[in-house]
Amino acid sequence: MKVILLAAGRSKRMQPIRDKNFLDFLGKPLIQWQLEMLWKTGFKDVAVVGGKHNLEAIAELLKKIGKKVALIEQKNLDMGMCGAVLAAKSFIGKDAVMVFSSNDVVEEKAFKVMLSAYKSGKASSYLIGKKVDKYFPGGYLKSDKKGFISEIVEKPEPGKEPSNLINLVVHIHSDSAKLIKHLENVKSVKDDLYEVGLTNMIKDGVKMMAVPYDGFWQPLKFPWHVHSVFKYLFSISPKKRAKSAKIAKNAIINGDVIIAEKAVIFDGAVINGPAYIGENTIVATNALVRDSHVGKNCIIGFSTELARSHLGHDVWTHTNYVGDSVIGNNVSFGSGTVTGNLRLDEKNICVDLDGNKIDTQTNKFGLICGDNVRVGINTSLMPGIKIGNNSFVGAGIVVPENIPEGSYVRAKWELKISKNEACLESKGRAEMRKRMEK
Amino acid sequence: MKVILLAAGRSKRMQPIRDKNFLDFLGKPLIQWQLEMLWKTGFKDVAVVGGKHNLEAIAELLKKIGKKVALIEQKNLDMGMCGAVLAAKSFIGKDAVMVFSSNDVVEEKAFKVMLSAYKSGKASSYLIGKKVDKYFPGGYLKSDKKGFISEIVEKPEPGKEPSNLINLVVHIHSDSAKLIKHLENVKSVKDDLYEVGLTNMIKDGVKMMAVPYDGFWQPLKFPWHVHSVFKYLFSISPKKRAKSAKIAKNAIINGDVIIAEKAVIFDGAVINGPAYIGENTIVATNALVRDSHVGKNCIIGFSTELARSHLGHDVWTHTNYVGDSVIGNNVSFGSGTVTGNLRLDEKNICVDLDGNKIDTQTNKFGLICGDNVRVGINTSLMPGIKIGNNSFVGAGIVVPENIPEGSYVRAKWELKISKNEACLESKGRAEMRKRMEK
Amino acid sequence: MKVILLAAGRSKRMQPIRDKNFLDFLGKPLIQWQLEMLWKTGFKDVAVVGGKHNLEAIAELLKKIGKKVALIEQKNLDMGMCGAVLAAKSFIGKDAVMVFSSNDVVEEKAFKVMLSAYKSGKASSYLIGKKVDKYFPGGYLKSDKKGFISEIVEKPEPGKEPSNLINLVVHIHSDSAKLIKHLENVKSVKDDLYEVGLTNMIKDGVKMMAVPYDGFWQPLKFPWHVHSVFKYLFSISPKKRAKSAKIAKNAIINGDVIIAEKAVIFDGAVINGPAYIGENTIVATNALVRDSHVGKNCIIGFSTELARSHLGHDVWTHTNYVGDSVIGNNVSFGSGTVTGNLRLDEKNICVDLDGNKIDTQTNKFGLICGDNVRVGINTSLMPGIKIGNNSFVGAGIVVPENIPEGSYVRAKWELKISKNEACLESKGRAEMRKRMEK
Repeated sequence: MKVILLAAGRSKRMQPIRDKNFLDFLGKPLIQWQLEMLWKTGFKDVAVVGGKHNLEAIAELLKKIGKKVALIEQKNLDMGMCGAVLAAKSFIGKDAVMVFSSNDVVEEKAFKVMLSAYKSGKASSYLIGKKVDKYFPGGYLKSDKKGFISEIVEKPEPGKEPSNLINLVVHIHSDSAKLIKHLENVKSVKDDLYEVGLTNMIKDGVKMMAVPYDGFWQPLKFPWHVHSVFKYLFSISPKKRAKSAKIAKNAIINGDVIIAEKAVIFDGAVINGPAYIGENTIVATNALVRDSHVGKNCIIGFSTELARSHLGHDVWTHTNYVGDSVIGNNVSFGSGTVTGNLRLDEKNICVDLDGNKIDTQTNKFGLICGDNVRVGINTSLMPGIKIGNNSFVGAGIVVPENIPEGSYVRAKWELKISKNEACLESKGRAEMRKRMEK
Repeated sequence: MKVILLAAGRSKRMQPIRDKNFLDFLGKPLIQWQLEMLWKTGFKDVAVVGGKHNLEAIAELLKKIGKKVALIEQKNLDMGMCGAVLAAKSFIGKDAVMVFSSNDVVEEKAFKVMLSAYKSGKASSYLIGKKVDKYFPGGYLKSDKKGFISEIVEKPEPGKEPSNLINLVVHIHSDSAKLIKHLENVKSVKDDLYEVGLTNMIKDGVKMMAVPYDGFWQPLKFPWHVHSVFKYLFSISPKKRAKSAKIAKNAIINGDVIIAEKAVIFDGAVINGPAYIGENTIVATNALVRDSHVGKNCIIGFSTELARSHLGHDVWTHTNYVGDSVIGNNVSFGSGTVTGNLRLDEKNICVDLDGNKIDTQTNKFGLICGDNVRVGINTSLMPGIKIGNNSFVGAGIVVPENIPEGSYVRAKWELKISKNEACLESKGRAEMRKRMEK
Repeated sequence: MKVILLAAGRSKRMQPIRDKNFLDFLGKPLIQWQLEMLWKTGFKDVAVVGGKHNLEAIAELLKKIGKKVALIEQKNLDMGMCGAVLAAKSFIGKDAVMVFSSNDVVEEKAFKVMLSAYKSGKASSYLIGKKVDKYFPGGYLKSDKKGFISEIVEKPEPGKEPSNLINLVVHIHSDSAKLIKHLENVKSVKDDLYEVGLTNMIKDGVKMMAVPYDGFWQPLKFPWHVHSVFKYLFSISPKKRAKSAKIAKNAIINGDVIIAEKAVIFDGAVINGPAYIGENTIVATNALVRDSHVGKNCIIGFSTELARSHLGHDVWTHTNYVGDSVIGNNVSFGSGTVTGNLRLDEKNICVDLDGNKIDTQTNKFGLICGDNVRVGINTSLMPGIKIGNNSFVGAGIVVPENIPEGSYVRAKWELKISKNEACLESKGRAEMRKRMEK
């Protein structure tokens, strides 16, 4: 069986995070985690479908990993998954094929239940159906009692779901020729071409079975999905503390914490797991890291609190609070700068995506920060804003909205300087101190 | 003997603190402390005189306490203590009566010296006289060598005090009928009707004796009196740490500290007594609580310092400095927000009360904060200001004056966004780090 | 041999630091360190040349030290070192003289190599030549193979240095009569009269020898030189911790740290050497002092970080970051105030000196702060600025430029206060807390 891993998406909803496939988790980019999951399950004939924007980076990564993986370019990115499968036409040949989207983070069990269904031979195509307890705005699998799918219902209204099974992109097609044919014939629609192709296959009599799955699933579409992915990948990783890491005697480490090579934990620092401290990263005096991912070469500076956040590489913080945030690479925050992560009215945080407000479905969300960003001291970053790549934000500012890529943000300050008539002598100090010591 | 506890005052000078009788100290409202003090001394026949604004709350509290206490409504609140005693006329009947104001926090000894004087039978009425070392702007008892009072001198000029005895409201009247008669006849004055009534009693030949008292006394009129009351009530309480409290091994507790049920003290937190940590309250990592009262369900967040302050319930702080402040219930401060508690010129802090500047007589005083308040991140609250109930204050603001109840405070921000020509690569980081490590 | 210690300079480039001779290092003013260095080497006949501005202070110090030192006033300060030597004419008499500037901090070895050269008798005058590895903008000694100086080349262009020997002011002249004569004749130039005099001596046939020196040297001209002087003087001092100092059990002290009498180190404080903690100074809970000098009666407040900085006396900090800064005496910073010490573009910090931008040659430099200064809470002080003596700076301000002496700096704040429609009940808290604890 062939596997095609769909990785050509342009991560628009993740911006300014550049390419979610290369978002690092515990020292490895997401796409590597996905490949390793496939290999571990036993798949050997895997192709990655990329786009012009990330083909080179994927090639470089594959070279570094050193395992044989086909690399296919999808030229027409507007055709989405349909275009991706068609781009892999010659790679697939006449074999059965599993289509897997790098957007969907699942556990190994997902592949196992799919393989087991495929081996049963009961149908021609198999779509995984993630069991959900409550409404989720996705595509639902409508099937009969035996599990044969009659329809994929995209985003039904809450309460009108045809089942409790969400369609993730872990699909097996035994008859790849038929799949290709139907996908090639889908041309008159704008979106969801692949799903239309599947619907046409069903109409054409192809037996398509829903395979129920109750394991972990996290779609990685928006930045506020990153933390959940981290927590899952952390949970399946060995809880190793590198011998080359230096941990001060007076540092405190509670719960499961992974500490990578050459990391340094200073006196009075507290790390509460789950937490990943990347290679060569410093957690400085009296800092607190909890429930967070810190990439390599970072500095979690003096008296900084990092909570439920994901930091890339070369991120330097200093007396900051960074909460519920996703921070890129090569970023620094000046001392006293804070990411707000809760509205005064405690309503859900909304994020502006190209002029549309997207509800994060949580009232705790902080900053989305691109690469090569510098923020000055004592600046206040309002909940749910984005700072674009290569931007500078000055000191002492309240930033209430998204900052476009390549911006330099300053505030207008008008100081009033008058003559100071008072001159305090230091002897007042002695008296105040005496009172304090009482 | 009957006791009437005067609790009908409207706490105007305490605003936005709603009713000082219900200000909580160590898990109990002030009025309960006062009642328990009376019971402990042996008084059994006690009535509380309340007003329309707090009658229901007092009734509920009395029900909860479960001891028999009469509850009397004073309808004409403008008549002050005089009106309160008259409202209790039928409760008092023909018995001797002790009049005690909930405004005056004293120790048990005060009642004991009064009872002992009363038993001596030397006079008909007895007024307690708190011995003071230095000028206090209150009413002074002018008496002859035998202790018989000839006059109550209200707020004499400094240096013109007729004695060193301040008139607190712990008074015993053997002849309650005469008291009532004189109070009923005082109608032509605006203020201090009760005191005028007492003066008339003296003129009428009633023997009124000053009973010297050198124990603790703190009038609770202004918010800056709260801390002293806390310290006294703390001093007479057992220094208990609840077994259900969780105290991290790396937390540090110095001096006398009371920790209530289910409180949680995190690693690196420091608590320096006297300090009260309320039920279900969290003192988070690297926070410092010193010389303060923290109510229930509070969070003293990461790296917050709380000093000489009184917090009600459900107060959440986060990387703040809260000093010399009185904070109501259901309040939160965003990370980096600071209560200023010292003027640049180090002069005494004045507080605006309905347009009048009241000197707190100290150069260290912070914030007076009502209930249901939210303050954003990195905001600066100037010394001695009040934030009214149900108000929101935005991020990164300097608040120089009182904020009325139900306000939403924002600053006008004008950002200048220009093109950022610089793009810093992360390799600069490696060099800087190398220099730092030298 | 006579020694004249030149201390009449007006420290203009150090402003607002008043007089660098009286800048305190480890409990002693710089000029005392210089005198002690001379005495330790064996010099006995020493005169200090001061100016009207510091003559009294020097006299007082000399009295306090109690050793016999001549004190000479230089009246014409515009004549620089030349004027200083001439002022000492009668003190010098006919003896050989060593001229030493208090601007140049060197180690004892400097005097030893000079004395040894002088004893050789090979020349009439001897100028020390500090060996440098890379370009330094100073005066270079051009000499022949035997070491005889032909010229002093002031600030050559980089790459055009005539040697690797920098002319410091540690000079011995055997023929003081000739020195005086030549200095008296130098009258037609504006600057560097002393150097012109030396050049004329060479032209006149005086044998002047370069004495190579490879020990410590730090010129103290600009505030960013102070830290290096501290580190040197620290390195030669015994690493004593006073018995009268109180160090909490939970404080952490790493590396070489000197703690003076009656200093107090609180729980959770961290001090990383090299560090000097002055007499009666408090390092409070969870504060961090690293690589810094703290004078006497200071408070390094809760959760403050002090790095690579020099604090005078009576400096009170509170939840601050003070980095790469030089702070005078009797100063306080409100909670949350930060000294920025790195530009967003990470370029070298420049300091404005009377309208000229001086490059500090480093990208990490903070604040230069005079005496009797108060800064409010949450204020942001941009890298490389100066705050003049007797100035107040308000709260929540970004200070981008030098503040002149005796200023009162405020920002214009325009608050928008509207009606707050929301009223959050505290029960929302219970739910949020439950989610947090998951």
